[in-house]
Amino acid sequence: MHFQTIAIIGRYQDSGLDTPVRALARMLTQAGCKVLIESDTAKNTSIHEFPVGTYAQIGQQADLALVLGGDGTMLGAARELAHAHVPLIGINHGRLGFITDIPINDANQALYSLLDGHYEIEERSMLEGRVLRNGETLFAGSALNDVVINRAGRGGMIELRVELNDIFMYRQRADGLIISTPTGSTAYSLAANGPILHPSLNAILLVPVAPQTLSQRPIVLPDNGTLKLTITTLGRVESGGSVHFDMQAWSDCQPGDVIEVRRSSNSVRFIHPKGYSFFSTLRSKLDWNRMPLPQEDNE
Amino acid sequence: MHFQTIAIIGRYQDSGLDTPVRALARMLTQAGCKVLIESDTAKNTSIHEFPVGTYAQIGQQADLALVLGGDGTMLGAARELAHAHVPLIGINHGRLGFITDIPINDANQALYSLLDGHYEIEERSMLEGRVLRNGETLFAGSALNDVVINRAGRGGMIELRVELNDIFMYRQRADGLIISTPTGSTAYSLAANGPILHPSLNAILLVPVAPQTLSQRPIVLPDNGTLKLTITTLGRVESGGSVHFDMQAWSDCQPGDVIEVRRSSNSVRFIHPKGYSFFSTLRSKLDWNRMPLPQEDNE
Amino acid sequence: MHFQTIAIIGRYQDSGLDTPVRALARMLTQAGCKVLIESDTAKNTSIHEFPVGTYAQIGQQADLALVLGGDGTMLGAARELAHAHVPLIGINHGRLGFITDIPINDANQALYSLLDGHYEIEERSMLEGRVLRNGETLFAGSALNDVVINRAGRGGMIELRVELNDIFMYRQRADGLIISTPTGSTAYSLAANGPILHPSLNAILLVPVAPQTLSQRPIVLPDNGTLKLTITTLGRVESGGSVHFDMQAWSDCQPGDVIEVRRSSNSVRFIHPKGYSFFSTLRSKLDWNRMPLPQEDNE
Amino acid sequence: MHFQTIAIIGRYQDSGLDTPVRALARMLTQAGCKVLIESDTAKNTSIHEFPVGTYAQIGQQADLALVLGGDGTMLGAARELAHAHVPLIGINHGRLGFITDIPINDANQALYSLLDGHYEIEERSMLEGRVLRNGETLFAGSALNDVVINRAGRGGMIELRVELNDIFMYRQRADGLIISTPTGSTAYSLAANGPILHPSLNAILLVPVAPQTLSQRPIVLPDNGTLKLTITTLGRVESGGSVHFDMQAWSDCQPGDVIEVRRSSNSVRFIHPKGYSFFSTLRSKLDWNRMPLPQEDNE
Repeated sequence: MHFQTIAIIGRYQDSGLDTPVRALARMLTQAGCKVLIESDTAKNTSIHEFPVGTYAQIGQQADLALVLGGDGTMLGAARELAHAHVPLIGINHGRLGFITDIPINDANQALYSLLDGHYEIEERSMLEGRVLRNGETLFAGSALNDVVINRAGRGGMIELRVELNDIFMYRQRADGLIISTPTGSTAYSLAANGPILHPSLNAILLVPVAPQTLSQRPIVLPDNGTLKLTITTLGRVESGGSVHFDMQAWSDCQPGDVIEVRRSSNSVRFIHPKGYSFFSTLRSKLDWNRMPLPQEDNE
Repeated sequence: MHFQTIAIIGRYQDSGLDTPVRALARMLTQAGCKVLIESDTAKNTSIHEFPVGTYAQIGQQADLALVLGGDGTMLGAARELAHAHVPLIGINHGRLGFITDIPINDANQALYSLLDGHYEIEERSMLEGRVLRNGETLFAGSALNDVVINRAGRGGMIELRVELNDIFMYRQRADGLIISTPTGSTAYSLAANGPILHPSLNAILLVPVAPQTLSQRPIVLPDNGTLKLTITTLGRVESGGSVHFDMQAWSDCQPGDVIEVRRSSNSVRFIHPKGYSFFSTLRSKLDWNRMPLPQEDNE
Repeated sequence: MHFQTIAIIGRYQDSGLDTPVRALARMLTQAGCKVLIESDTAKNTSIHEFPVGTYAQIGQQADLALVLGGDGTMLGAARELAHAHVPLIGINHGRLGFITDIPINDANQALYSLLDGHYEIEERSMLEGRVLRNGETLFAGSALNDVVINRAGRGGMIELRVELNDIFMYRQRADGLIISTPTGSTAYSLAANGPILHPSLNAILLVPVAPQTLSQRPIVLPDNGTLKLTITTLGRVESGGSVHFDMQAWSDCQPGDVIEVRRSSNSVRFIHPKGYSFFSTLRSKLDWNRMPLPQEDNE
Repeated sequence: MHFQTIAIIGRYQDSGLDTPVRALARMLTQAGCKVLIESDTAKNTSIHEFPVGTYAQIGQQADLALVLGGDGTMLGAARELAHAHVPLIGINHGRLGFITDIPINDANQALYSLLDGHYEIEERSMLEGRVLRNGETLFAGSALNDVVINRAGRGGMIELRVELNDIFMYRQRADGLIISTPTGSTAYSLAANGPILHPSLNAILLVPVAPQTLSQRPIVLPDNGTLKLTITTLGRVESGGSVHFDMQAWSDCQPGDVIEVRRSSNSVRFIHPKGYSFFSTLRSKLDWNRMPLPQEDNE
């Protein structure tokens, strides 16, 4: 893949984004690329000297999107661009994230390498789903991390009937249920005691949050089926359930509503510098080199 | 303790409660006791042939309160009567609960034994707490199970600064934090992976729900101190945090609000039939006799 | 697949096996099949009126093997017959197991259905591995459930360096490490807090037992790579480490030894009656219908 | 308490111990204290210019024992000196431990403060126990951290019947069972997913390792009772069970053996510099300031 038109997308609420965006845009222009600043990013940074484009235009024109921000910014951009198959590269000017793995200070060097063809492509699966009531679709969305079904407040119990390809799996009474991609296995799911899934797995992960059945465990399923989750009970009468596709929420679920989730036909492609290692990210983000427990006197 | 005046309290929403309430009231009257039907229970069951009393009157007059219902009914009655030191006995006409340990069919026999002096008293600690803003108390409550601080929805992250007796413990970023009595350790806390605390322990249990710091663990503290929990951040701007004292909720918490929790000066006294065993309840409720994993061919 | 020659294999130490083995052998003979009693089973049951065969002969001649016993008997038979691709069917005369799903009382009916062609075939992956010292193979084995590396006794700490395809993953200091197939995810791994993997996944699961790094989590990997586990330290000087392939153990590991594990080129094929559901087994074995926690008064 | 005679105890296998031991001994002598070098420490360091004493003599003469080493050295010294009520102070020349909280570089200053009376005393409970066969005591020991009952090897299943004050609690089938003091709750128990217990709690913690009953949870008990653990089954015939009191092991347990454990009448007293905080140790040892999970873009 040769990158000719490169979009630049910045974290929405960020102030101080204009300097790095401008620097990257100049560097890419000098390297002979066409640059396209995402329109909200342009507005937010008051950068007017480079071409500006909406997500739709980026989808049509760009060969690559640079995302400046954290994992959340990356999630948003991925969802916008997945259908257009524009690959993304994450540049972080704060702490590194799980999917934004280039520190801003290394960005120039990393981009020169990229333009020279030294990079790796990684395909990440996404989920798509919809909320149905009496067979009618109320809401539809897609997620790179997870679809989360839960309840508001401490009366946080929700009861779900879970089916895979119309075969009954189990009932779940819990604070909520996380349906996660391999990418999402290092996000919210991990806090809820889920396992880590290698990004290349063709799998979907179900992790209950605070399940009332003490023997329930996270379960990993093949990603070629359709999950059907029926809300059978909500803990209290007064409030509804909610479904979250990454950060987009639909909050008016009622008992009887059905949430269908399957792997999306779209994937996200991440571009990494040569030598990228998923395990290296895990080690540094999860601090796997620490062994805090005293090992008698062997430590 | 000799029981002369005995209150009868029934589950609020229950229909079909009139038959067992009436039967118990008759049986106690015939045994020479004065009976007092809790006023909402009387209204709900249309029982008019026995004396009726409010919780305040029960607090003044009763030596014992029979509670018909599940653990939730028991929690409510306990909170109402704790300051008056009226002991409670739980009679369950559904599945047995952790604190309602007499099946309705055994109630007569159990009550005759009780009136004959064959019983055990168990003291259960409670929590009391309040929500403070700029030093002003916005809400106060007490709990036999737990005080839970959390956020609405999947943007369910809340960040707390936790102090014990004004000494900094740690910051917590999680879906929520459960502060539990030993009694509450077999309720919501258990679903969130908390340990079980024997009811006689002088201890308070802190259990995070889906903590973002992967090395955080439940922690058991002595119950002679004051916990101070300051809400430092809420995940999203648009919605507030909430605090639950058992089932009573205060849902308008803002960053900066302080929740103080300590052991209450009131305790609840439960009356059990002779031979009551906490461990027997655990075994049957938690199904500790099951060993589902195949033990090679030894099973 | 049409079954003409059917082997019968019984649990090794079982007394009282002669009656069901003889009954099954007769029933199959009457149905026109050739029967082959596994030689140790024949010796153990004193059954001499049917043809007898070693595992090697069964591998050459049989189209199907009936296994009477628990999951452990099934594991042993699977390992013996995997290279010969003889499918297995598990008949349990005790409690049902995860992989022995036909109760003895239903065996006749199930077998008639099978002979009529009403069955499902399920492929289960296996692991193969070897222990290397200075490049020399000390021990080699295969496993349908798991390869477990651990230490004897409470000085039970072992430290491993884990690599996948020669890329460093992490160091592990723990009681032990379980490398599990999807089939093994419902065995020992589950007790060590591992997730459940659907049997059809092309995945290998790594679950640490009592890891000293509190942020370590089970991790699910694709099954097309090679794991290399180097023993870097053993907790105490006096005793060695051990490696278990299902139930076969090699107990003389020293620091510096390398254990290589990969997916085996052989798989096991299980035959199930039509309508078999993995989830149904989970529900009944793990008691997923139980919700022991009191749901306030909603229960 | 005024410290006149101060013992110095060093980690057994340590080389390079002579310099810090000699420096501390000189400093204390100059400050007017009598110094007593523990005899193995003296032999190991070849220090002959100061008085030398056995643990028995230290127990009789010393007002305080300085322990140089890690938590393991501290455990050993505590067990030796508990009956004599000599308080201990832990000085660590490697990584700080949970109970060795003074870095070697701060030792001089900390000791001057101590001699001036600026210190805090903390009482830590211990366990004592014995292994009984047919009523006869085979082995007895005490532990500051934990008593661990387990099996050798991966056939690591052990089945125990657990009673408290002769009341049946439950059966446990697991790799092992940890009976821990509050002090031990931050040691092995923590790796096995146990909760943290504040050191001042009057409690004993039971934590199963890889329990086969998936609903089993750690349980916290009052420390005024006697635990009785009967080994009912061992996984395989060929090998015995073992009991560990901290690091001392008895490895010949058979089915039928009984292990009795109770709180010891002896406690250990730790001396801390003024301002010591258990929570500060937790934060730094367990890295509780890290929140590795990406909080969308809020991080």
